Amino acid sequence: MNQFVDLEALRAACLTLPPGSDAAAEAVRERQQILTKPIGSLGRLEDLVAWLARWQNRAMPRLDQVDVLVFAGNHGVTRQGVSPFPASVTAQMVANFSHGGAAINQLSRVASADLRVVPLELETPTRDFTEAPAMDEPDFLRAVTTGYDAIRPDRDLVCLGEMGIGNTTAAAAVAAALFGGDGAHWAGRGTGIDDAGLLRKRNVIDDGLKRHAAWLGDPLLIAMALGGRELAAILGATLAARRNGIPVLLDGFVCTSAAAPLARLTPGGLDHTMLAHLSAEAGHRILAKALGLTPLLDFGMRLGEASAAALAVPLLRAAVACHTGMATFAEAAVDNRT
Amino acid sequence: MNQFVDLEALRAACLTLPPGSDAAAEAVRERQQILTKPIGSLGRLEDLVAWLARWQNRAMPRLDQVDVLVFAGNHGVTRQGVSPFPASVTAQMVANFSHGGAAINQLSRVASADLRVVPLELETPTRDFTEAPAMDEPDFLRAVTTGYDAIRPDRDLVCLGEMGIGNTTAAAAVAAALFGGDGAHWAGRGTGIDDAGLLRKRNVIDDGLKRHAAWLGDPLLIAMALGGRELAAILGATLAARRNGIPVLLDGFVCTSAAAPLARLTPGGLDHTMLAHLSAEAGHRILAKALGLTPLLDFGMRLGEASAAALAVPLLRAAVACHTGMATFAEAAVDNRT
Repeated sequence: MNQFVDLEALRAACLTLPPGSDAAAEAVRERQQILTKPIGSLGRLEDLVAWLARWQNRAMPRLDQVDVLVFAGNHGVTRQGVSPFPASVTAQMVANFSHGGAAINQLSRVASADLRVVPLELETPTRDFTEAPAMDEPDFLRAVTTGYDAIRPDRDLVCLGEMGIGNTTAAAAVAAALFGGDGAHWAGRGTGIDDAGLLRKRNVIDDGLKRHAAWLGDPLLIAMALGGRELAAILGATLAARRNGIPVLLDGFVCTSAAAPLARLTPGGLDHTMLAHLSAEAGHRILAKALGLTPLLDFGMRLGEASAAALAVPLLRAAVACHTGMATFAEAAVDNRT
Repeated sequence: MNQFVDLEALRAACLTLPPGSDAAAEAVRERQQILTKPIGSLGRLEDLVAWLARWQNRAMPRLDQVDVLVFAGNHGVTRQGVSPFPASVTAQMVANFSHGGAAINQLSRVASADLRVVPLELETPTRDFTEAPAMDEPDFLRAVTTGYDAIRPDRDLVCLGEMGIGNTTAAAAVAAALFGGDGAHWAGRGTGIDDAGLLRKRNVIDDGLKRHAAWLGDPLLIAMALGGRELAAILGATLAARRNGIPVLLDGFVCTSAAAPLARLTPGGLDHTMLAHLSAEAGHRILAKALGLTPLLDFGMRLGEASAAALAVPLLRAAVACHTGMATFAEAAVDNRT
């Protein structure tokens, strides 16, 4: 059963996003003034607490329940030779996730987060977007709804990520359609394509932009025509998180591109998200800048799987631990500034 | 009992540093090629594992036992009005550490690390370095030895940090003496000094550089004349860690400046250290660049207390968890590149 009966129902949901809590953020800022440290000396850790408070609507934010959601999809465009890995790897990696052997399994454990992997009709790849829209409307809405419904309303934070051979091509095409520029501007090497493959990838993106030119004014049609099911699911999950008061950690290039239509539809549509990491994938720096997202980490990673989002969770835990656990100047009998 | 009978014994120890293990680092690089991820896609996490392996001399590095060491000292130079906080705060914060109320208490807990605080003769501040060397040789060597002996040889990693009202003035003076430049080049606002205070601070540093000009060719004499006991202890701890096969996470400006004499005495003297964070304190960016250290985080923090070093520990744990826990392509039956 679809959460959204048609594209216009989804659009309406995207256009009526709840705001965050100014009061909760303000309460955080007040407490930060009296904790035993020079004012502002915890830097971005202080901003992170205020951000969590604002979107959790809690003056004392918490991170007891953290989900890591990895959506997996297959892409018809892989037949154009845009990845050095065969499309079979998507399902094989999903199996690897379920057996605990992937990076995200280890990173979720370190983050004390619950990893949940959601494969999206892997046996039926989306269509090659150089020939037709990647998805038709029911297919797209089904994927968005799967992502939407994967959000558990009682969570304190959710990390979003993906797995899908070929999906940096889809992500670059979506980013190009949303923000302008061509394949050469947005395409990177993904899992490590060679020079010839990179040239193919750029051309494939340009072909897709040309074929779907009539739809490029609409962020949702862009996601449907050029994206993929795992990207659509991330869009749905990002929307559901906003509507349920759950802050989101975005992962890399594909994840950011998947969520970007929300920002194009509504100013501040991604204010409840934080970019965990600046990917080494070429287009991510451009996309992050276009969206006004400042990454927490810059570790040169380019794996996807929500790996960088999970990596950043302990940084948020540290921020919350300082805020909730530190003594005030009065409690500790420490002299304040003279 | 001093580890070092005189300055020349300390110098000899600094000039004969053990190298890291090329074999352990190489073993890490080989395993990274066959884990279920595109080659190099974990970015800096992969470099961190190789670094830990090299300095632990273990092909499979571990982080079971992590110490956070915070050294505290008082500074005669505070009477020049270089800090907005009274010198009494150093001892009060040490009490706050022991009651669990400071940022580093919370951050050590999140890092699953053992916090140990080492106050260094707080009741007797070092001398005002504008008038005399901050320490005489026995005082300096006592502090270095305290730091050296604080390293427990069975640890897998140590985070170093400090507490000491006035110590960004000492750190800036040491950095200026080691790398050139004057007070205006190196002094920052520390815990938040105002414009008039910053001007005083710059002049105090220039006065110190002038008074001890004859000693500025010797990194150890610089540390003795312009530093402080907690800085000397960090130098001793950094040296002991190297000699015991323990990688070090350096914290902020004061910590980096404290360890810097080792790099000036011996090329590669800080290769077993990693800079956790780029401090908002003005001189840190210059100092990190001079030392060739690339910070893991850039969060605008400026607290000291080993706070940023402890914050970075989970990033290293994540790196190690991926390396030791991930399946290989063969184990997971995932197709490798075509």
